[in-house]
Amino acid sequence: MQNNAKRKIILDCDPGHDDAIAILLAAGNPNVELVGITTVAGNAEVEKTTKNALQVCEIAGIANVPVFKGSGQPMIRKRETAPSIHGDSGMDGPVLPEPKKTAEHGHAVDFIIQKLMESDGDITLVPVGPLTNIAMAMRREPAILSKIQEIVLMGGGTFGNWTPAAEFNIFVDAEAAKVVFDSGVPITVMGLDLTHQALATREVCSRIAQIENRAGKFVSELLEFFRETYLDVFGFEHPPVHDVCSVAYCIDPTVVETKRVRVDVETKGEFTYGMTAVDLLGVTGREPNVNFAVKLDHTKFWDMVIEALNNLSK
Amino acid sequence: MQNNAKRKIILDCDPGHDDAIAILLAAGNPNVELVGITTVAGNAEVEKTTKNALQVCEIAGIANVPVFKGSGQPMIRKRETAPSIHGDSGMDGPVLPEPKKTAEHGHAVDFIIQKLMESDGDITLVPVGPLTNIAMAMRREPAILSKIQEIVLMGGGTFGNWTPAAEFNIFVDAEAAKVVFDSGVPITVMGLDLTHQALATREVCSRIAQIENRAGKFVSELLEFFRETYLDVFGFEHPPVHDVCSVAYCIDPTVVETKRVRVDVETKGEFTYGMTAVDLLGVTGREPNVNFAVKLDHTKFWDMVIEALNNLSK
Amino acid sequence: MQNNAKRKIILDCDPGHDDAIAILLAAGNPNVELVGITTVAGNAEVEKTTKNALQVCEIAGIANVPVFKGSGQPMIRKRETAPSIHGDSGMDGPVLPEPKKTAEHGHAVDFIIQKLMESDGDITLVPVGPLTNIAMAMRREPAILSKIQEIVLMGGGTFGNWTPAAEFNIFVDAEAAKVVFDSGVPITVMGLDLTHQALATREVCSRIAQIENRAGKFVSELLEFFRETYLDVFGFEHPPVHDVCSVAYCIDPTVVETKRVRVDVETKGEFTYGMTAVDLLGVTGREPNVNFAVKLDHTKFWDMVIEALNNLSK
Amino acid sequence: MQNNAKRKIILDCDPGHDDAIAILLAAGNPNVELVGITTVAGNAEVEKTTKNALQVCEIAGIANVPVFKGSGQPMIRKRETAPSIHGDSGMDGPVLPEPKKTAEHGHAVDFIIQKLMESDGDITLVPVGPLTNIAMAMRREPAILSKIQEIVLMGGGTFGNWTPAAEFNIFVDAEAAKVVFDSGVPITVMGLDLTHQALATREVCSRIAQIENRAGKFVSELLEFFRETYLDVFGFEHPPVHDVCSVAYCIDPTVVETKRVRVDVETKGEFTYGMTAVDLLGVTGREPNVNFAVKLDHTKFWDMVIEALNNLSK
Repeated sequence: MQNNAKRKIILDCDPGHDDAIAILLAAGNPNVELVGITTVAGNAEVEKTTKNALQVCEIAGIANVPVFKGSGQPMIRKRETAPSIHGDSGMDGPVLPEPKKTAEHGHAVDFIIQKLMESDGDITLVPVGPLTNIAMAMRREPAILSKIQEIVLMGGGTFGNWTPAAEFNIFVDAEAAKVVFDSGVPITVMGLDLTHQALATREVCSRIAQIENRAGKFVSELLEFFRETYLDVFGFEHPPVHDVCSVAYCIDPTVVETKRVRVDVETKGEFTYGMTAVDLLGVTGREPNVNFAVKLDHTKFWDMVIEALNNLSK
Repeated sequence: MQNNAKRKIILDCDPGHDDAIAILLAAGNPNVELVGITTVAGNAEVEKTTKNALQVCEIAGIANVPVFKGSGQPMIRKRETAPSIHGDSGMDGPVLPEPKKTAEHGHAVDFIIQKLMESDGDITLVPVGPLTNIAMAMRREPAILSKIQEIVLMGGGTFGNWTPAAEFNIFVDAEAAKVVFDSGVPITVMGLDLTHQALATREVCSRIAQIENRAGKFVSELLEFFRETYLDVFGFEHPPVHDVCSVAYCIDPTVVETKRVRVDVETKGEFTYGMTAVDLLGVTGREPNVNFAVKLDHTKFWDMVIEALNNLSK
Repeated sequence: MQNNAKRKIILDCDPGHDDAIAILLAAGNPNVELVGITTVAGNAEVEKTTKNALQVCEIAGIANVPVFKGSGQPMIRKRETAPSIHGDSGMDGPVLPEPKKTAEHGHAVDFIIQKLMESDGDITLVPVGPLTNIAMAMRREPAILSKIQEIVLMGGGTFGNWTPAAEFNIFVDAEAAKVVFDSGVPITVMGLDLTHQALATREVCSRIAQIENRAGKFVSELLEFFRETYLDVFGFEHPPVHDVCSVAYCIDPTVVETKRVRVDVETKGEFTYGMTAVDLLGVTGREPNVNFAVKLDHTKFWDMVIEALNNLSK
Repeated sequence: MQNNAKRKIILDCDPGHDDAIAILLAAGNPNVELVGITTVAGNAEVEKTTKNALQVCEIAGIANVPVFKGSGQPMIRKRETAPSIHGDSGMDGPVLPEPKKTAEHGHAVDFIIQKLMESDGDITLVPVGPLTNIAMAMRREPAILSKIQEIVLMGGGTFGNWTPAAEFNIFVDAEAAKVVFDSGVPITVMGLDLTHQALATREVCSRIAQIENRAGKFVSELLEFFRETYLDVFGFEHPPVHDVCSVAYCIDPTVVETKRVRVDVETKGEFTYGMTAVDLLGVTGREPNVNFAVKLDHTKFWDMVIEALNNLSK
């Protein structure tokens, strides 16, 4: 009966260092059920993010979860990737063998539509890369809108990291983000305000270093690389594991404090393209459309991650 | 000889509760010399902000400083004012007699140009309202650019108060702001990041309440009104006295910590018009153009203000 | 052997009075082969345009050409239709029975992708409505780009009809149009400059009135309604049958004179959203990307249409 | 008594080949009174256009009309000039001595304001360059709005020449144009639709070549140069003398046919900045704000110009 308590999620990702840890958390925690993993161009080209996702599945011992390759470029704009942060492969650092598992035939967008249409409205979408697949699915089959339980996305914030105003995931496909934010579906947003609290501190890293399985070693190597690029590019002392927050929230919403607000996505601006305008002060008079995460329980969050890593097979 | 140490400023303002305190600080502190006060439409129409400026001059005992009325509307957009914050008069709260002092003949823009052109390059412009007058002067007489010692403005920030993305002063005339920020003149910016630290706490207010002159009583009444609108509109516990920061910085730059960054003004965005895109992470690769204030010494700041108020005649 | 000379087209449409005549021309002319008809929201909602397409098929005696329903709304924007021009049904005027033919299972975008991928690169896309299906297909399967022989679209122009700057088809989904115009595929554009030459004059209408089959009577009724709305809304003496130009060009390119130019689609403008900026003077220095139709052979055009109508069975 | 019939105009220009002919027409025709000539940056920098204006005054024998130098750069944007069309001096072709006449002290914007405020509302502004001076005057002294009899400007059109969408004068300072078009003042627009009818054909040029005074020779040399650049840059057989149309309309409105329409100026577009969206079809539902010139009486126009040139002293 306990299976009934499991939250069904489709994890839409572009691994990506933090995406990888998000997959491992989902795999190692008993309270979520991974219905599928879908990939998208973002941190790297979609061929690379798909390969990376398959490799993480092997490390996590994920066998029966289908992986579908998705959109290779944004809806309207030209593709932009983030090699300065994630290396050329999109997941530089750990050296891994070619994955044995392969992606399913078919397109991520079709998989998302099919699973939602077959469901009882109990599937949560967890997009932690650009929102291309989700928006393409919404436009292709509008009937999915009423089938989505919730979207728990990583993206945006009251400030940016890819430009002064825009966070990477939203910037890469702001038109897709506009479609999603304006869709009327229940949305919870893990923006930079929240994810910059999810820092892999030295103390956290040494706890992870003590985990005696492949996943632990893998995460240690990921964080080592990520620490360096975050220091170089942004001057951060500790790297933030953005995408993990979305999965953590699905497992236990109390790990995050949220505020109900209006968020609009800027697609016209000269210096602000891809910004999420977050109405924290309530000055727009526009109807709130998202739960915006503002505060992370850092201890509970990392305990949850480390416990999940420990749960994974050696 | 100590007069040589005085910093010459033209205070361009739209009183406005915090503008009023900024005028009083300039009047009561011996280290700045008020070359003139110019007014602009902003918190209220320019007729009102001019009248308010004249009333503050009387309370401050300012006799020999000329007051010039300036631009009544933004360069390109339609005028927008802020009665929800400053009341209908632009300075609601204290009840004051009609001012005896009158504004000079002539236009603020001409006065600014004339004073700068006559100067040895030792005048600092302190615009604490919309930047209309400053930009109009720059376009009218480009030769002033090399004559301006520094512009110490109140406006912008990494977040907004009038919209989720834009601060009021920049929003009201973003085109003027663009002219100023792109002018090449040395600029120091007191944005919301800084001015939201300049809170008139209960403790500060009770210190001001003990000042035994007209100015002290006047400021107490201003803050009482301002406290209420800031609570109502923004949910702030204590009101921030934005504009005072610019004058305080001119008196003693150590009251504020700044960072040299690139700031670009958004004039095209759908949800972000009037935003200042502040490149705190250095991701744009664009040349820094401003000193952006990030931290206020709250104690030093209020000591300076209270001392100045005490200096004013009864 | 003459079959080899037939030009294979997929007609992507939103009937629509002129769309209907375009279908009839394709059905009645021996030089084109209708591989399929796909529908899109435009002149009316996609359910209506699909029903209208099926009805036209019956009148045309089209039996073996599959009809696929496509996108019900634009890629990013909210849907907008044109009841003022085409009536509530999208094809008001003629009274028609419910069509016996039904749409195929599956989505227009999948059909377009499948046919192109199976082909030898000999299929021409003829989109005469908003470009949503075409752009969605390009994003879904980028490999189709090298398979498209040519796109012969109706849309845009140096002036507008839905706004002063924008033609209806481009305005309704300018983001999709941007994807298509920037795709690198060979494109020929029938814009308003051309289609406003394709007028159904009184003389043309009386020739059509003499055609003794269902199609002739149907077109006469379509033109009667269209004449009235074009007079009411635009003050035109004779209605232009825009979409027919694209099919006519596929049959015989000499019916139209074109100029090779750069066209860019405006997606940011306040008063110009959906405009096609056509560089007729060659002032942009940007690489030409389309053949832009500038002159119609009015006689040859209508002779071709009337001959095709006569070819259709009674 | 006939003086009462003279129409008072201030000619605001950036000579400029066609501007020069516009000045000569105003000087040689008895029905207009040149209250003043003001200059602006446009075809060339304002120092050059001012010098050119003074030279034209000498050739025209204009002695008592004051010339005032105006704005050297647009209100918000960076300056852009047109050496490809007008040569480096802004009026290349004729070789002229240094002018003896000098510009007045003071700024064009002040002159415009002063003359309007002193007037009985009987002065027409004739801006034939970028609208910077006019908009700066409107913002500096809003009281002039009710004093302007009419603005008869050269600029804009339903198509562009500097970009596919924008005409040069509007493109150079679209923000100023927005201020003027939205001002509520009566406006008549000589856009490219009209001015491309004002062609200096071979027949016109040979008539001018027979005029036996300095002005005739000067205009012949101007047109020779202008003919060449218009052929090179735009492929025109004959050069259009845009600015002359505005003065001709002031002299005799019947030389031009106009239509009352809405015109909005685009300041946000990516490919359409500076476009005038002209609602010829009446589809916006917005209140008309200009008389838009659509048809020129070519014979009457050139007769008027040639007569005026003949009137000028040898």
